[in-house]
Amino acid sequence: MSGAYGPRLSRLLEALRRLPGVGPKSAQRMAFHLLGRDRDGAAFLRDALAAALAGIERCPRCRMYCEDGRCAFCVPSRETGGQVCVVETPADLLAIESSTGYRGRYFVLGGRLSPLDGIGPEQLGLDRLESELTGSPGSGAGVRELIIAINPSVEGEATAYYLGELGRRYGATVTRIAYGVPLGGELESTDGGTLARAFTGRTPA
Amino acid sequence: MSGAYGPRLSRLLEALRRLPGVGPKSAQRMAFHLLGRDRDGAAFLRDALAAALAGIERCPRCRMYCEDGRCAFCVPSRETGGQVCVVETPADLLAIESSTGYRGRYFVLGGRLSPLDGIGPEQLGLDRLESELTGSPGSGAGVRELIIAINPSVEGEATAYYLGELGRRYGATVTRIAYGVPLGGELESTDGGTLARAFTGRTPA
Repeated sequence: MSGAYGPRLSRLLEALRRLPGVGPKSAQRMAFHLLGRDRDGAAFLRDALAAALAGIERCPRCRMYCEDGRCAFCVPSRETGGQVCVVETPADLLAIESSTGYRGRYFVLGGRLSPLDGIGPEQLGLDRLESELTGSPGSGAGVRELIIAINPSVEGEATAYYLGELGRRYGATVTRIAYGVPLGGELESTDGGTLARAFTGRTPA
Repeated sequence: MSGAYGPRLSRLLEALRRLPGVGPKSAQRMAFHLLGRDRDGAAFLRDALAAALAGIERCPRCRMYCEDGRCAFCVPSRETGGQVCVVETPADLLAIESSTGYRGRYFVLGGRLSPLDGIGPEQLGLDRLESELTGSPGSGAGVRELIIAINPSVEGEATAYYLGELGRRYGATVTRIAYGVPLGGELESTDGGTLARAFTGRTPA
């Protein structure tokens, strides 16, 4: 059937299929929607992509996305508590920011330690985090509390362990967000791993 | 939370949300994927959109998308049978082309007759189809069979009726694709409307 598509349409379909969660059917639906019903939307997306590629960068300090050299999360008001919350991805940062009252600083790893895939401390910017912990010039007054908010996978556990060691080496209090039975969840239907973790991590009531 | 997004990221999210089937969560996932893991893909999509907007047009004859003034479906080899299959959308055309052996010509309406929404015969290009039926100069040798492949909705039925009258007025044989119990379907679980239609449309066995 690809013979029925011209080269430009084929390329558009290929480009749309590179988006996460978009298969051949969705790509075709999107392409025909943009071409037939929303050419303005297509031009808008083209321009938005161009502007994003040209003007969105990683903050050199916290590694979150920032624009025009101003990071929304590396501002003086967030320094006061001396807290830094370490997350894997920008999406995790936004989830914490929108659901919790935490208004301290962040550090985005961009992944998990995975030596087999060639992802070591440097790839995650941990040298940057280290200079943050030492309170080196230009990076504020050091870190009092290092909050680890890493996904509880095997590699995540290794990463959290490494971060914990790193934080303690520089005298920071290291904490970790709680893992356990989700709110609204039922013990009976909670998976064994989660339940075991909730039991081990029981707190004084 | 939108305060956490810079203006360029906000615009990118807005542009992605205009794609069919993409909500706020998917848009964020797509944006972070493009920015963090596939900047080449973002540039590829930007360029593919630009090329599509500049170079994909409607074929003036069959109203399918075409490029460089060459329509893949308005070629002499498809003229011989004198058949024209009328569909609603480009996606319908491609579905018929890929699943059936039909290799005649097409006509894409781009919608259904819907007077309340201001969609009349002109909006669907039926004047163009009419000049095709009369065999006017430059439009081939007229139409022998007009095949109606319209979705069986209320407006679709009205459109099909209109097309049937139009075809017969110019002496074309008018046929309609069969509607009934889908292959692999079970009578018991087929909806009443479909079953009634299958029963009325029974054929000699």
